[in-house]
Amino acid sequence: MANPSLLILAGDGIGPEVMDQVKRVIAWFGDKRDLSFDVSEDLVGGAAYDAHGTPLHDDTMARALEVDAVLLGAVGGPKYDDLDFSVKPERGLLRLRKEMDLFSNLRPAQCFDALADFSSLKKDIVAGLDIMIVRELTSGVYFGEPRGIFEEGNERVGINTQRYTEGEIDRVARSAFELARRRSSKVCSMEKANVMESGILWREVVQKVRDADYPDIELSHMYADNGAMQLVRAPKQFDVILTDNLFGDILSDCAAMLTGSLGMLPSASLGAPTGDGPPRALYEPVHGSAPDIAGQGKANPIACILSFAMALRYSFDQGEEATRVETAIEKVLADGARTADLMGEDGGTPVTTTQMGDAILAAL
Amino acid sequence: MANPSLLILAGDGIGPEVMDQVKRVIAWFGDKRDLSFDVSEDLVGGAAYDAHGTPLHDDTMARALEVDAVLLGAVGGPKYDDLDFSVKPERGLLRLRKEMDLFSNLRPAQCFDALADFSSLKKDIVAGLDIMIVRELTSGVYFGEPRGIFEEGNERVGINTQRYTEGEIDRVARSAFELARRRSSKVCSMEKANVMESGILWREVVQKVRDADYPDIELSHMYADNGAMQLVRAPKQFDVILTDNLFGDILSDCAAMLTGSLGMLPSASLGAPTGDGPPRALYEPVHGSAPDIAGQGKANPIACILSFAMALRYSFDQGEEATRVETAIEKVLADGARTADLMGEDGGTPVTTTQMGDAILAAL
Ligand SMILES: CC(C)[C@H](C(=O)O)[C@@H](O)C(=O)O
Ligand SMILES: CC(C)[C@H](C(=O)O)[C@@H](O)C(=O)O
Repeated sequence: MANPSLLILAGDGIGPEVMDQVKRVIAWFGDKRDLSFDVSEDLVGGAAYDAHGTPLHDDTMARALEVDAVLLGAVGGPKYDDLDFSVKPERGLLRLRKEMDLFSNLRPAQCFDALADFSSLKKDIVAGLDIMIVRELTSGVYFGEPRGIFEEGNERVGINTQRYTEGEIDRVARSAFELARRRSSKVCSMEKANVMESGILWREVVQKVRDADYPDIELSHMYADNGAMQLVRAPKQFDVILTDNLFGDILSDCAAMLTGSLGMLPSASLGAPTGDGPPRALYEPVHGSAPDIAGQGKANPIACILSFAMALRYSFDQGEEATRVETAIEKVLADGARTADLMGEDGGTPVTTTQMGDAILAAL
Repeated sequence: MANPSLLILAGDGIGPEVMDQVKRVIAWFGDKRDLSFDVSEDLVGGAAYDAHGTPLHDDTMARALEVDAVLLGAVGGPKYDDLDFSVKPERGLLRLRKEMDLFSNLRPAQCFDALADFSSLKKDIVAGLDIMIVRELTSGVYFGEPRGIFEEGNERVGINTQRYTEGEIDRVARSAFELARRRSSKVCSMEKANVMESGILWREVVQKVRDADYPDIELSHMYADNGAMQLVRAPKQFDVILTDNLFGDILSDCAAMLTGSLGMLPSASLGAPTGDGPPRALYEPVHGSAPDIAGQGKANPIACILSFAMALRYSFDQGEEATRVETAIEKVLADGARTADLMGEDGGTPVTTTQMGDAILAAL
């Protein structure tokens, strides 16, 4: 049987250096666990723009549609701030999401015991926190038409369209309910049904799917503004949160920051199952390209390595091997290894990106 | 000279009981400070729906356009959850905002020294916090057309439109810059210009207004998802935050919850100056109608009383009298009076809504 295939798109800023550590972990699986991948690499974001004048070359797009999973580092940086909207680094990522049809974005917000002190929240509020946000990723205001800046009378008007079909809501709701069954069977869906008709349809369809096919799931609905409040007030009341593309963008970042350690959080973006194969999938850390520290060996590679662990679990049915990676990381943290982002005020010497990779390989 | 006129719309849930305490404060100003108001009262939200089948009667709307300021309690409750979208309690409030053209919504997120322990955040992160969020309130996705649920092929689609004209962005930016001049002259504007064209126009116009007429203002721009993160991570980096209607809804609730005491936070919604007079204005607490505790004398009237203080400052040019109210409230808190929402885990006996009113009047 052919090896499963992986496309690595390291991207911009700290993307390449954290991805270097992921490659070492991938190599380790080939050597020690007889689990080899066919790895290819390509450019995305600013790096692709510099080489080809586009944030995602068509050949790269085609390759992403062929492989079993894509691993992405990060995109963007101040160098590209003044580029035209259509070729900004982010467009490369958004094109991947859309053309791979990755409608279900899983963003865990998990607070690691060894790091609970890093949160700006009180320890008892966040210790043990383990939320999974399921964010719709291929529709809503990110992709709705009409969109653009238009002349109207003697002024300009900026327009975007929030748009959800029943089918789009239905499929992402199912993915949240499936996931919830493997956790605590509790889902909270968030929208602004008190203000937006798209939110009314969202609420109705989510409820209908639950009633028809997931009666075992405890489903609640919350307005997104209250959701933001409740995340800050008492985040442990949540298990799975289901929400749309734009609310998901904001609420998942809010939830991520509750944990205090952004450098630790992975994400998975999944499509529909393709025939017998795994679903199309893209894995990436939640953190951005951090241009201010890029190239200095300061970046924390853990979020990116945990993204690979998610790939093992969701794309390659290797849940045990995923747990192996996660356990190794917990051990390394418990032993006290810290990259610069994880240093407390009391100081100590941070480890470099490569040293963190060394420690994780040793723990494996 | 005629007394300034006030329209009180107490609304639903705890609205009427917190407003009762405001009325006592208003009466105190007439008795003791020779500052009398012509007060009229009417219905809004579910209360108006129960009486008239609409969440805002046309006569009430007309009256709101005549008076110098409107004080609103709260709208909504589970009783009205199944009403049609067009007559939900919220529509009454949204109609007031729109027809009074209250484009600038000021939402202070202030952490009271005596209450810093109530925050879910660490004390040093929030003690002394004093942010002012300026939220655009009459446009964006709340009001953009087309909107609704439509048939498309054999499924339904929910549509809302995010829409901002240059003029709408310009005027709310000016209101934020004016306000910033009376504070620290620092404004951070938030949008998703990396994903939404309406955000690109927003960023461009805000920058242009700053460069042309407010060169003394230090202006920065931030993506709204990062804004949510930064609010949780280190809120004191902000002074004035300027943002649109939907992001403002979520971010201001997030910011409010950082302070730990929602029952304390007022808001002002201001229109353009009308001739020589003050701008059209509506003042309301940030908290909702809290149907679970309504009618039990447990509600905290402070946010609503502080909303009246904002009216003194922004509508009636009585900044000193506003400060008088604020100082009285600080004193009452320092003396230890606490409604149920402000009770710590260590217990003690909470004061009732009326007792809190008594204490504030005594302190005045
Ligand atoms: C980079 C940007 C386009 C993206 C988004 O807005 O979705 C990012 O914020 C994210 O959450 O993955
Ligand atoms: C009640 C509701 C319509 C309103 C809004 O979404 O604006 C509320 O959440 C607010 O922030 O004032």
